[in-house]
Amino acid sequence: MRFTSETSSDGVCEQLFTLGEIPGVLWTPVGAAGARPLILMGHGGGQHKKAPDILGRARRFVAECDFAVVAVDVPGHGDRPTDEEYDRIATENQARVEAGEELAPLIAGFQALVARQTVPEWRTVLDAVQQLEHVGAGPVGYWGVSLGCGLGVPFVAAEPRVRAAVLGLGGALATAEAAARITVPVEFLLQWDDERVPRAQSLALFDALTSAEKTLHANPGKHGEIPAFELDSTLRFFTRHLG
Amino acid sequence: MRFTSETSSDGVCEQLFTLGEIPGVLWTPVGAAGARPLILMGHGGGQHKKAPDILGRARRFVAECDFAVVAVDVPGHGDRPTDEEYDRIATENQARVEAGEELAPLIAGFQALVARQTVPEWRTVLDAVQQLEHVGAGPVGYWGVSLGCGLGVPFVAAEPRVRAAVLGLGGALATAEAAARITVPVEFLLQWDDERVPRAQSLALFDALTSAEKTLHANPGKHGEIPAFELDSTLRFFTRHLG
Repeated sequence: MRFTSETSSDGVCEQLFTLGEIPGVLWTPVGAAGARPLILMGHGGGQHKKAPDILGRARRFVAECDFAVVAVDVPGHGDRPTDEEYDRIATENQARVEAGEELAPLIAGFQALVARQTVPEWRTVLDAVQQLEHVGAGPVGYWGVSLGCGLGVPFVAAEPRVRAAVLGLGGALATAEAAARITVPVEFLLQWDDERVPRAQSLALFDALTSAEKTLHANPGKHGEIPAFELDSTLRFFTRHLG
Repeated sequence: MRFTSETSSDGVCEQLFTLGEIPGVLWTPVGAAGARPLILMGHGGGQHKKAPDILGRARRFVAECDFAVVAVDVPGHGDRPTDEEYDRIATENQARVEAGEELAPLIAGFQALVARQTVPEWRTVLDAVQQLEHVGAGPVGYWGVSLGCGLGVPFVAAEPRVRAAVLGLGGALATAEAAARITVPVEFLLQWDDERVPRAQSLALFDALTSAEKTLHANPGKHGEIPAFELDSTLRFFTRHLG
């Protein structure tokens, strides 16, 4: 793990790093010492580790909850090189949608493929970050919607360090089997008028989770229109389960 | 409006009253003076105005939010006399369920009938309570699940003083038309394993609300098993919209 820059503002320290080929960012409270809860955040499709919605949430987790937060670029995103196989599939899928195929199964299949790479990558990220003195081996949370849900469901299912997860904007097509292995508390965000994920598939994914505590929060609006008050709820959810 | 008793504990004043034939209870902060938000609460079937879940929520609304809260007995419940027509229908419905009929449409039909009486009764209660100096004409919220939802949907649709509502454990069978006239913010509680209200009918009722801000909170468990953390959410919801 190699740190390449460090800046801080408003009490939040931001460190860019690379771990092997994976570019990442770690946010911690300025002057942090000792173990604390850690949130791993998965960004959306076409976005990156410092996309505005990731950055905004990460800063609040650090400033208001005293957590550490880590995010890395998904293959083919952000500071990572173009991935020829993923690019080829994306181009093919685009053509298939234009030819009249349904979007949701194509997205699901693609995310399942990428998850085979990101699940082990993210576990390596946890290994490395939790060895830092100002992060330590505290409880871990996962936050990810859309692509971050498609990749997050198999990750949360596979990683016992994760004690609570916020997921959503994703359907059951590719992830139902992994979802059935998730038993930790989940807050699941669904947009009632989601133009990318059919409502029935989102409800089926929520249904598939075997967590004793899981809450579906559904709000009107399209895929990208989660209302701001849900972030307040997310902060309380993670505080309740990791704090 | 005639007050019949007044007690107080832990900063909450409780006044029993009758308004015509309607027995009710008003909770306010001890020493309250001047206008404040008012929550009208509708109790569940077979329950009454001081059922434990009503009382517990009411005390928190008063103690933590400085609101006033009022609840009255639904006809045929609590301190009200038996209603022969309602009793006859309930007995008939019981027999029809035992003979194999579906429960949900029978409940929905019964609630629609009772609502024809409770909507004007509850509006009269608001009129009377808001004339009291320690309640006043502040914004009004409505809280009611199960029977309190079946009666609450037509009430909230009809009463412009209501600015925000918590509803749930109810389906669209009898109330979809009224729900389509509701435009105020709604927090809607759904129990994922509700044995009394089919899930699809609950989702259809949430769908029918035309509110720009509405949030569905779905949790695992049966009809009566809303998790305790939802009350925290309810307090924040009413504070955001009435406070």
